[in-house]
Amino acid sequence: MAEKSDVIFVGNKPPMSYVLAIITAFSSGNAKEITLKARGQAITTAVDVAEIARNRFMKDLKVSNITIGTAEMPPREGENKSRMVSTIEITLTKE
Amino acid sequence: MAEKSDVIFVGNKPPMSYVLAIITAFSSGNAKEITLKARGQAITTAVDVAEIARNRFMKDLKVSNITIGTAEMPPREGENKSRMVSTIEITLTKE
Repeated sequence: MAEKSDVIFVGNKPPMSYVLAIITAFSSGNAKEITLKARGQAITTAVDVAEIARNRFMKDLKVSNITIGTAEMPPREGENKSRMVSTIEITLTKE
Repeated sequence: MAEKSDVIFVGNKPPMSYVLAIITAFSSGNAKEITLKARGQAITTAVDVAEIARNRFMKDLKVSNITIGTAEMPPREGENKSRMVSTIEITLTKE
């Protein structure tokens, strides 16, 4: 499984950094499937990344699965309640 | 179809407004399925809305489908290139 499925965590970098990571992972030859994981505001970036990769660079890329969920985050400094954030996982498969 | 599938467009309002819209639509009795549509930064809000509705208010709600895509937006004033924005559609089904 390890060489067949890779995970890329999407954060605050520009979308193109993650698009490049996808292209690199697929062209290294081992990956057949890559999962983008993001939470909070980065969810929008993750969707952008998937769309840019698919429409502009790798036409044979398919979105094979999308899952949403909720994760608990530790409280910020000075706060004492933990926060809930939404998460997304987008799986891209090369045909 | 019209009374079985409703669409809620998620924008810049607080997530709870949309959660209320979902609860209202389902409890009016006709809707079996509701689709949340959002684009750009509102994608994160749409995921939050689905998660809040499902975890806090309607435990029998299921995410039956998620689709992502790209839409072309007309250029902003003073610009002459149209922009691409990512979109999401989240379908919620009551069991």
